[in-house]
Amino acid sequence: MQRTSLNAFECPAARALDGVGDWWSILILRDALQGLTRFDQFQESLGVAPNILSRRLKHLTEHGLFERRAYSERPVRHEYVLTARGRDFYPVAIALFAWGNRHLPHDQVAMLLGDRVTGKVRRPVLVDAETGEEMTPANTTLLPGPAAGSETHQRIALMKALRKQQHHHLD
Amino acid sequence: MQRTSLNAFECPAARALDGVGDWWSILILRDALQGLTRFDQFQESLGVAPNILSRRLKHLTEHGLFERRAYSERPVRHEYVLTARGRDFYPVAIALFAWGNRHLPHDQVAMLLGDRVTGKVRRPVLVDAETGEEMTPANTTLLPGPAAGSETHQRIALMKALRKQQHHHLD
Repeated sequence: MQRTSLNAFECPAARALDGVGDWWSILILRDALQGLTRFDQFQESLGVAPNILSRRLKHLTEHGLFERRAYSERPVRHEYVLTARGRDFYPVAIALFAWGNRHLPHDQVAMLLGDRVTGKVRRPVLVDAETGEEMTPANTTLLPGPAAGSETHQRIALMKALRKQQHHHLD
Repeated sequence: MQRTSLNAFECPAARALDGVGDWWSILILRDALQGLTRFDQFQESLGVAPNILSRRLKHLTEHGLFERRAYSERPVRHEYVLTARGRDFYPVAIALFAWGNRHLPHDQVAMLLGDRVTGKVRRPVLVDAETGEEMTPANTTLLPGPAAGSETHQRIALMKALRKQQHHHLD
Protein backbone atom coordinates (compact mmCIF):
# COMPACT_ATOMS: atom_id res chain seq x y z
CA MET A 1 0.00 0.00 0.00
CA GLN A 2 1.19 3.46 -0.84
CA ARG A 3 -0.67 5.32 1.88
CA THR A 4 0.69 4.64 5.35
CA SER A 5 -2.79 4.12 6.72
CA LEU A 6 -6.33 3.99 5.37
CA ASN A 7 -7.15 6.06 8.44
CA ALA A 8 -6.01 9.07 6.41
CA PHE A 9 -9.25 8.83 4.41
CA GLU A 10 -12.36 10.69 5.55
CA CYS A 11 -14.55 7.82 4.34
CA PRO A 12 -15.70 5.74 7.32
CA ALA A 13 -15.60 2.52 5.25
CA ALA A 14 -11.90 3.10 4.52
CA ARG A 15 -11.18 3.85 8.18
CA ALA A 16 -13.12 0.80 9.24
CA LEU A 17 -10.97 -1.46 7.04
CA ASP A 18 -7.86 0.04 8.62
CA GLY A 19 -9.00 -0.99 12.10
CA VAL A 20 -9.81 -4.51 10.99
CA GLY A 21 -6.54 -5.32 9.23
CA ASP A 22 -6.98 -8.15 6.74
CA TRP A 23 -9.16 -11.08 5.71
CA TRP A 24 -8.10 -13.21 8.66
CA SER A 25 -9.33 -10.50 11.00
CA ILE A 26 -12.79 -10.57 9.42
CA LEU A 27 -12.93 -14.35 9.80
CA ILE A 28 -11.77 -14.07 13.43
CA LEU A 29 -14.57 -11.57 14.06
CA ARG A 30 -17.04 -13.90 12.35
CA ASP A 31 -15.94 -16.71 14.67
CA ALA A 32 -16.13 -14.46 17.74
CA LEU A 33 -19.66 -13.41 16.76
CA GLN A 34 -20.52 -17.13 16.72
CA GLY A 35 -19.27 -17.50 20.31
CA LEU A 36 -15.57 -18.44 20.01
CA THR A 37 -13.26 -16.73 22.52
CA ARG A 38 -10.10 -18.83 22.89
CA PHE A 39 -6.88 -18.93 20.92
CA ASP A 40 -7.08 -22.65 20.20
CA GLN A 41 -10.74 -22.38 19.15
CA PHE A 42 -9.86 -19.72 16.55
CA GLN A 43 -6.87 -21.73 15.41
CA GLU A 44 -8.87 -24.91 14.96
CA SER A 45 -11.62 -23.06 13.13
CA LEU A 46 -9.37 -21.17 10.73
CA GLY A 47 -6.37 -23.43 10.26
CA VAL A 48 -4.25 -20.29 10.49
CA ALA A 49 -0.61 -20.19 11.63
CA PRO A 50 -0.27 -19.32 15.37
CA ASN A 51 1.98 -16.29 14.73
CA ILE A 52 -0.53 -14.79 12.28
CA LEU A 53 -3.45 -15.46 14.62
CA SER A 54 -1.63 -13.96 17.57
CA ARG A 55 -0.72 -10.83 15.57
CA ARG A 56 -4.31 -10.44 14.37
CA LEU A 57 -5.78 -10.83 17.87
CA LYS A 58 -3.32 -8.22 19.16
CA HIS A 59 -4.27 -5.81 16.36
CA LEU A 60 -8.00 -6.28 16.97
CA THR A 61 -7.51 -5.82 20.73
CA GLU A 62 -5.46 -2.64 20.21
CA HIS A 63 -8.17 -1.30 17.90
CA GLY A 64 -10.82 -1.84 20.56
CA LEU A 65 -12.63 -4.81 19.00
CA PHE A 66 -11.63 -7.36 21.64
CA GLU A 67 -11.04 -7.20 25.35
CA ARG A 68 -8.41 -9.64 26.64
CA ARG A 69 -9.51 -11.39 29.86
CA ALA A 70 -7.84 -13.99 32.05
CA TYR A 71 -10.03 -17.06 32.40
CA SER A 72 -7.53 -19.22 34.25
CA GLU A 73 -4.90 -18.30 36.88
CA ARG A 74 -2.59 -21.34 36.79
CA PRO A 75 -1.55 -21.47 34.11
CA VAL A 76 -2.52 -17.92 33.14
CA ARG A 77 -4.71 -18.13 30.06
CA HIS A 78 -6.58 -15.38 28.25
CA GLU A 79 -9.69 -15.29 26.20
CA TYR A 80 -10.77 -12.66 23.68
CA VAL A 81 -14.19 -11.18 24.36
CA LEU A 82 -15.83 -8.87 21.82
CA THR A 83 -16.33 -5.25 22.91
CA ALA A 84 -19.46 -3.31 21.90
CA ARG A 85 -17.55 -2.11 18.83
CA GLY A 86 -16.61 -5.69 18.00
CA ARG A 87 -20.20 -6.92 18.40
CA ASP A 88 -21.36 -4.10 16.11
CA PHE A 89 -19.33 -5.67 13.30
CA TYR A 90 -22.15 -8.20 12.95
CA PRO A 91 -24.05 -6.47 10.09
CA VAL A 92 -20.81 -6.30 8.05
CA ALA A 93 -20.23 -10.05 8.48
CA ILE A 94 -23.87 -10.77 7.59
CA ALA A 95 -23.81 -8.50 4.52
CA LEU A 96 -20.67 -10.33 3.30
CA PHE A 97 -22.32 -13.69 3.99
CA ALA A 98 -25.45 -12.72 2.05
CA TRP A 99 -23.39 -11.39 -0.86
CA GLY A 100 -21.34 -14.60 -0.98
CA ASN A 101 -24.53 -16.67 -1.27
CA ARG A 102 -26.42 -14.35 -3.58
CA HIS A 103 -25.03 -15.42 -6.94
CA LEU A 104 -24.50 -19.07 -6.03
CA PRO A 105 -26.84 -21.69 -7.58
CA HIS A 106 -29.10 -22.91 -4.75
CA ASP A 107 -27.69 -26.46 -4.79
CA GLN A 108 -24.21 -25.05 -4.06
CA VAL A 109 -25.29 -23.15 -0.94
CA ALA A 110 -23.61 -24.74 2.11
CA MET A 111 -24.76 -22.32 4.84
CA LEU A 112 -27.87 -20.24 5.38
CA LEU A 113 -29.05 -17.91 8.10
CA GLY A 114 -32.22 -18.66 10.03
CA ASP A 115 -34.46 -17.37 12.77
CA ARG A 116 -33.10 -18.90 15.98
CA VAL A 117 -36.59 -19.64 17.32
CA THR A 118 -38.57 -20.72 14.26
CA GLY A 119 -35.63 -22.00 12.16
CA LYS A 120 -37.06 -20.19 9.15
CA VAL A 121 -34.52 -19.04 6.55
CA ARG A 122 -33.71 -15.32 6.75
CA ARG A 123 -32.89 -13.03 3.84
CA PRO A 124 -30.78 -10.12 5.14
CA VAL A 125 -31.52 -6.74 3.58
CA LEU A 126 -30.07 -3.33 4.39
CA VAL A 127 -32.74 -0.71 5.02
CA ASP A 128 -33.02 2.82 6.35
CA ALA A 129 -34.02 2.43 10.03
CA GLU A 130 -36.58 5.22 9.88
CA THR A 131 -38.37 4.64 6.57
CA GLY A 132 -37.71 0.88 6.23
CA GLU A 133 -36.78 1.54 2.57
CA GLU A 134 -34.08 -0.73 1.09
CA MET A 135 -30.96 1.37 0.57
CA THR A 136 -29.60 1.39 -3.00
CA PRO A 137 -27.11 3.58 -4.89
CA ALA A 138 -30.14 5.04 -6.74
CA ASN A 139 -31.94 6.32 -3.64
CA THR A 140 -29.01 7.05 -1.32
CA THR A 141 -26.37 9.75 -1.48
CA LEU A 142 -23.35 11.03 0.42
CA LEU A 143 -23.80 13.99 2.80
CA PRO A 144 -21.11 16.07 4.50
CA GLY A 145 -20.85 15.47 8.27
CA PRO A 146 -19.62 17.98 10.90
CA ALA A 147 -15.96 17.02 10.26
CA ALA A 148 -16.22 17.13 6.43
CA GLY A 149 -13.02 18.38 4.81
CA SER A 150 -11.92 18.79 1.21
CA GLU A 151 -11.96 15.01 0.54
CA THR A 152 -15.66 14.74 1.36
CA HIS A 153 -16.66 17.87 -0.58
CA GLN A 154 -14.64 16.80 -3.63
CA ARG A 155 -16.26 13.36 -3.51
CA ILE A 156 -19.77 14.83 -3.35
CA ALA A 157 -19.00 17.21 -6.25
CA LEU A 158 -17.53 14.34 -8.30
CA MET A 159 -20.61 12.17 -7.74
CA LYS A 160 -22.86 15.03 -8.88
CA ALA A 161 -20.77 15.56 -12.02
CA LEU A 162 -20.84 11.83 -12.85
CA ARG A 163 -24.62 11.71 -12.43
CA LYS A 164 -25.04 14.68 -14.75
CA GLN A 165 -22.79 13.00 -17.32
CA GLN A 166 -24.90 9.84 -17.17
CA HIS A 167 -28.12 11.81 -17.62
CA HIS A 168 -26.49 13.55 -20.57
CA HIS A 169 -25.67 10.15 -22.11
CA LEU A 170 -29.27 9.04 -21.65
CA ASP A 171 -30.68 12.18 -23.35
CA MET B 1 -1.95 -17.19 4.44
CA GLN B 2 -1.67 -20.90 5.05
CA ARG B 3 -4.68 -21.97 3.02
CA THR B 4 -4.22 -21.55 -0.70
CA SER B 5 -7.61 -19.95 -1.08
CA LEU B 6 -10.43 -18.84 1.21
CA ASN B 7 -12.65 -20.47 -1.38
CA ALA B 8 -11.91 -23.75 0.38
CA PHE B 9 -14.25 -22.68 3.19
CA GLU B 10 -17.95 -23.50 3.07
CA CYS B 11 -18.78 -20.16 4.71
CA PRO B 12 -20.05 -17.71 2.08
CA ALA B 13 -18.43 -14.76 3.90
CA ALA B 14 -15.02 -16.41 3.58
CA ARG B 15 -15.61 -17.19 -0.08
CA ALA B 16 -16.80 -13.65 -0.69
CA LEU B 17 -13.54 -12.23 0.69
CA ASP B 18 -11.60 -14.49 -1.62
CA GLY B 19 -13.32 -13.03 -4.67
CA VAL B 20 -12.72 -9.47 -3.55
CA GLY B 21 -9.00 -9.74 -2.83
CA ASP B 22 -7.88 -7.00 -0.44
CA TRP B 23 -8.71 -3.61 1.05
CA TRP B 24 -7.97 -1.77 -2.17
CA SER B 25 -10.54 -3.89 -3.95
CA ILE B 26 -13.23 -2.89 -1.46
CA LEU B 27 -12.36 0.78 -1.96
CA ILE B 28 -12.40 0.34 -5.76
CA LEU B 29 -15.88 -1.22 -5.45
CA ARG B 30 -16.97 1.66 -3.22
CA ASP B 31 -15.78 4.13 -5.88
CA ALA B 32 -17.49 2.18 -8.66
CA LEU B 33 -20.74 2.16 -6.67
CA GLN B 34 -20.42 5.96 -6.56
CA GLY B 35 -20.18 6.11 -10.35
CA LEU B 36 -16.45 5.91 -11.16
CA THR B 37 -15.55 3.71 -14.15
CA ARG B 38 -12.15 4.79 -15.47
CA PHE B 39 -8.62 3.86 -14.50
CA ASP B 40 -7.52 7.46 -13.92
CA GLN B 41 -10.64 8.21 -11.85
CA PHE B 42 -9.88 5.30 -9.52
CA GLN B 43 -6.24 6.30 -9.36
CA GLU B 44 -7.01 9.89 -8.48
CA SER B 45 -9.55 8.86 -5.88
CA LEU B 46 -7.37 6.30 -4.12
CA GLY B 47 -3.82 7.56 -4.60
CA VAL B 48 -2.89 3.95 -5.31
CA ALA B 49 0.11 2.84 -7.43
CA PRO B 50 -0.91 2.06 -11.06
CA ASN B 51 0.43 -1.51 -10.96
CA ILE B 52 -1.60 -2.32 -7.85
CA LEU B 53 -4.73 -0.70 -9.31
CA SER B 54 -4.34 -2.55 -12.58
CA ARG B 55 -3.86 -5.90 -10.79
CA ARG B 56 -6.93 -5.28 -8.60
CA LEU B 57 -9.14 -4.31 -11.56
CA LYS B 58 -8.02 -7.46 -13.38
CA HIS B 59 -8.80 -9.61 -10.32
CA LEU B 60 -12.25 -8.05 -9.87
CA THR B 61 -12.99 -8.47 -13.59
CA GLU B 62 -11.90 -12.13 -13.55
CA HIS B 63 -14.12 -12.71 -10.50
CA GLY B 64 -17.13 -11.31 -12.32
CA LEU B 65 -17.47 -8.01 -10.44
CA PHE B 66 -16.55 -5.75 -13.36
CA GLU B 67 -17.13 -5.91 -17.07
CA ARG B 68 -14.39 -4.29 -19.17
CA ARG B 69 -15.79 -2.17 -21.99
CA ALA B 70 -14.10 -0.08 -24.69
CA TYR B 71 -15.32 3.51 -24.54
CA SER B 72 -12.90 4.91 -27.12
CA GLU B 73 -11.54 3.41 -30.36
CA ARG B 74 -8.51 5.61 -31.05
CA PRO B 75 -6.75 5.31 -28.77
CA VAL B 76 -8.39 2.15 -27.41
CA ARG B 77 -9.49 2.87 -23.85
CA HIS B 78 -11.48 0.72 -21.47
CA GLU B 79 -13.76 1.43 -18.62
CA TYR B 80 -14.80 -0.86 -15.79
CA VAL B 81 -18.55 -1.24 -15.40
CA LEU B 82 -20.01 -3.08 -12.41
CA THR B 83 -21.83 -6.33 -13.16
CA ALA B 84 -24.97 -7.33 -11.22
CA ARG B 85 -22.70 -9.17 -8.77
CA GLY B 86 -20.56 -6.05 -8.38
CA ARG B 87 -23.60 -3.81 -7.80
CA ASP B 88 -24.84 -6.25 -5.17
CA PHE B 89 -21.74 -5.48 -3.11
CA TYR B 90 -23.48 -2.24 -2.09
CA PRO B 91 -24.90 -3.48 1.26
CA VAL B 92 -21.41 -4.67 2.30
CA ALA B 93 -19.92 -1.24 1.57
CA ILE B 94 -22.77 0.47 3.42
CA ALA B 95 -22.51 -1.85 6.44
CA LEU B 96 -18.78 -1.08 6.64
CA PHE B 97 -19.49 2.65 6.29
CA ALA B 98 -22.07 2.55 9.09
CA TRP B 99 -19.76 0.55 11.34
CA GLY B 100 -16.91 3.04 10.77
CA ASN B 101 -19.13 5.91 11.85
CA ARG B 102 -20.90 4.17 14.69
CA HIS B 103 -18.36 4.63 17.47
CA LEU B 104 -17.07 7.99 16.27
CA PRO B 105 -18.00 11.10 18.32
CA HIS B 106 -20.51 13.06 16.21
CA ASP B 107 -18.17 16.04 15.70
CA GLN B 108 -15.62 13.71 14.06
CA VAL B 109 -18.04 12.35 11.46
CA ALA B 110 -16.90 13.50 8.00
CA MET B 111 -19.43 11.65 5.82
CA LEU B 112 -23.03 10.59 6.27
CA LEU B 113 -25.56 8.83 4.09
CA GLY B 114 -28.78 10.55 3.12
CA ASP B 115 -31.98 10.09 1.17
CA ARG B 116 -31.20 11.30 -2.36
CA VAL B 117 -34.54 13.10 -2.68
CA THR B 118 -35.17 14.57 0.76
CA GLY B 119 -31.52 14.85 1.89
CA LYS B 120 -32.51 13.40 5.27
CA VAL B 121 -29.78 11.43 7.09
CA ARG B 122 -30.19 7.65 6.83
CA ARG B 123 -29.29 5.10 9.47
CA PRO B 124 -28.58 1.76 7.75
CA VAL B 125 -29.81 -1.31 9.60
CA LEU B 126 -29.71 -4.96 8.57
CA VAL B 127 -33.09 -6.67 8.83
CA ASP B 128 -34.74 -9.90 7.77
CA ALA B 129 -36.59 -9.09 4.54
CA GLU B 130 -39.71 -10.99 5.53
CA THR B 131 -40.23 -10.05 9.18
CA GLY B 132 -38.44 -6.68 9.17
CA GLU B 133 -36.73 -7.73 12.42
CA GLU B 134 -33.19 -6.42 12.97
CA MET B 135 -30.80 -9.37 12.67
CA THR B 136 -28.56 -9.92 15.71
CA PRO B 137 -26.39 -12.82 16.92
CA ALA B 138 -29.06 -13.41 19.60
CA ASN B 139 -31.96 -13.98 17.20
CA THR B 140 -30.14 -15.44 14.17
CA THR B 141 -28.47 -18.79 13.71
CA LEU B 142 -26.63 -20.81 11.08
CA LEU B 143 -28.58 -23.40 9.07
CA PRO B 144 -27.21 -26.11 6.76
CA GLY B 145 -27.87 -25.46 3.05
CA PRO B 146 -28.23 -28.10 0.31
CA ALA B 147 -24.42 -28.29 -0.16
CA ALA B 148 -23.60 -28.47 3.57
CA GLY B 149 -20.60 -30.68 4.28
CA SER B 150 -18.71 -31.54 7.45
CA GLU B 151 -17.43 -27.95 7.94
CA THR B 152 -20.97 -26.58 8.18
CA HIS B 153 -22.25 -29.34 10.45
CA GLN B 154 -19.23 -29.04 12.76
CA ARG B 155 -19.75 -25.29 12.97
CA ILE B 156 -23.42 -25.64 13.85
CA ALA B 157 -22.59 -28.26 16.52
CA LEU B 158 -19.85 -26.04 17.96
CA MET B 159 -22.18 -23.04 18.18
CA LYS B 160 -24.76 -25.15 20.04
CA ALA B 161 -22.10 -26.42 22.47
CA LEU B 162 -20.83 -22.88 23.13
CA ARG B 163 -24.36 -21.62 23.78
CA LYS B 164 -24.99 -24.42 26.26
CA GLN B 165 -21.71 -23.59 28.03
CA GLN B 166 -22.77 -19.93 28.31
CA HIS B 167 -26.15 -20.91 29.73
CA HIS B 168 -24.36 -23.15 32.20
CA HIS B 169 -22.21 -20.17 33.29
CA LEU B 170 -25.30 -18.06 33.78
CA ASP B 171 -27.06 -20.68 35.93
